Amino acid sequence: MAYYVGIDLGGTNIKAGVVDSEGKLLNKLSIKTHAERSMEEIIHDMGTLAKDAISDAGLEVTDVDAIGIGSPGTPDNKEGLLVYSSNLPFNNAPMRKLIREVIDLPVYIDNDANCAAMAEAVAGAAKGTKDSVTITLGTGVGAGVIVNGRIYSGFNQAGSEFGHTVLVSGGIQCKCGRKGCFEQYASATALARMTEESAAANPDSVMNRLIEETGHSNAKIAFIAQREGDKAAGEVIDKYTDYLADGLANAINTFMPEVLVVGGGVCNEGDPLLIPMREKTMSRPYFGPGVPKTEVRLAQMGNDAGIVGAAMMGMTCAIDGKNGK
Amino acid sequence: MAYYVGIDLGGTNIKAGVVDSEGKLLNKLSIKTHAERSMEEIIHDMGTLAKDAISDAGLEVTDVDAIGIGSPGTPDNKEGLLVYSSNLPFNNAPMRKLIREVIDLPVYIDNDANCAAMAEAVAGAAKGTKDSVTITLGTGVGAGVIVNGRIYSGFNQAGSEFGHTVLVSGGIQCKCGRKGCFEQYASATALARMTEESAAANPDSVMNRLIEETGHSNAKIAFIAQREGDKAAGEVIDKYTDYLADGLANAINTFMPEVLVVGGGVCNEGDPLLIPMREKTMSRPYFGPGVPKTEVRLAQMGNDAGIVGAAMMGMTCAIDGKNGK
Repeated sequence: MAYYVGIDLGGTNIKAGVVDSEGKLLNKLSIKTHAERSMEEIIHDMGTLAKDAISDAGLEVTDVDAIGIGSPGTPDNKEGLLVYSSNLPFNNAPMRKLIREVIDLPVYIDNDANCAAMAEAVAGAAKGTKDSVTITLGTGVGAGVIVNGRIYSGFNQAGSEFGHTVLVSGGIQCKCGRKGCFEQYASATALARMTEESAAANPDSVMNRLIEETGHSNAKIAFIAQREGDKAAGEVIDKYTDYLADGLANAINTFMPEVLVVGGGVCNEGDPLLIPMREKTMSRPYFGPGVPKTEVRLAQMGNDAGIVGAAMMGMTCAIDGKNGK
Repeated sequence: MAYYVGIDLGGTNIKAGVVDSEGKLLNKLSIKTHAERSMEEIIHDMGTLAKDAISDAGLEVTDVDAIGIGSPGTPDNKEGLLVYSSNLPFNNAPMRKLIREVIDLPVYIDNDANCAAMAEAVAGAAKGTKDSVTITLGTGVGAGVIVNGRIYSGFNQAGSEFGHTVLVSGGIQCKCGRKGCFEQYASATALARMTEESAAANPDSVMNRLIEETGHSNAKIAFIAQREGDKAAGEVIDKYTDYLADGLANAINTFMPEVLVVGGGVCNEGDPLLIPMREKTMSRPYFGPGVPKTEVRLAQMGNDAGIVGAAMMGMTCAIDGKNGK
């Protein structure tokens, strides 16, 4: 059995673990990122964490074929750099070079949302398929595209920014500079905003009471209020799932994936979200008679998606003979 | 030099020609489709036309490595079928089998918009790139996606229907069933509709006079009127290029292609269309610092895109060892 180390680099934590070639996670270590430190210090710690993960798993460095790193921002996997990240002090950061000063293994780098999609494709909701798309509904809307079993991220590795496709032309201002991005209508942040707006317009609603009790809006309030019979909350969820389904149907028409994976905290709401989301999404794309249809499935990899996906990205790069040294 | 036959199947004409491995078209033959005929008769004629194209080019069947067919609708290239087409009487039509009854060569099938994108990628505006997207502004909005030098059309070969991604949520009803599709705002048909609406609201406009003279609106009138100093026409073009750029920027954020190729009759208007289209499109996607940017280029293959692209699709399938028999 071949083994791979996955490193999930975040603004708060760096996580690493050893993963086998079928996507099974053997162990998991975590340290604080301390993003205020220098790029060199952070990357040095990543290399040390990879070493620790290997010995913690009872393995030797020679048992491992590659290290995969999932990072926010845009990588250059050919040159082994992190070109740019909005959350970390990395500009053309020589990740491969610095990690290889700590541990002598091939190092591959990709975006964290792309790695999450790879995890779902190898070991999660899209296991057994070659073409899948994973959309994550969080603070923003993340997207990762798998084509023929490999991450697709465009010629510059900056894709897919599917969350920043305009769904409502001239709509809400997005931090990316555009107006009306899918992210502004389908993220957890968007649902919290819709909830807040409706609560303000309906001062007698359960939503309004819950926001006052909590001190602020969030993506759960509309669902709680709906269970308490709040009509306005039902309308918020209806509006949110309408936009969400429009964007998911766009992803289907664009990529025609065998499986469209949807994840993120909002999905924990279960049927009150998932039933309208699935029904609306699948009623919108046009498949001709006899043409196989995409399946919409829930993400399965949870918090391990980052590590597992990074490791499996490293595995595919190694299999394809890409330069990691 | 290896040679390939490309067949461009349309509702009105069937065109075929011989293409070399660099995408150079040697010759071109055309017959009427007579779409009222049976599927068997039409496909038999396609096979005969392929034979005629080979001998017309001064070649033997043995000089040719494969036949590629570009067809409207959704193919099944694995089984050699046209699964479905909205314009032709084809349902699970056994194209490969019937053509091979006429001529003994491997036969490969893909969608016509995908083949047009392949033509641009091999011999046209995206020559020398591995990842490109071609968007064609015609009666509808066609899209073809090239990933790593191959057509990407999803697990069911029904993609990419990028023209049927919603750009204006809840907007104009599209014939696909959705509301607010990109096609409804960026096709030549859409521009003709915007022109007509503005002319009705501005009875003294040059546009209104031209529509009355022509008897109906079309995609050229706004540009002619703008040259005559019609302010309302300038506003129509401004609105049209705004929507068009929003959709093109969506394609960039989604696919991050090295080149985004834009084609179709509307592009013949030259700078009055192209300058605002390019400027608006490139101002919208967000590339981080140091991240290479997509280039927007005009399609170059014109009417030959269908034949050349079908032939080159056949070539890539043959190179990849796909079954064509």
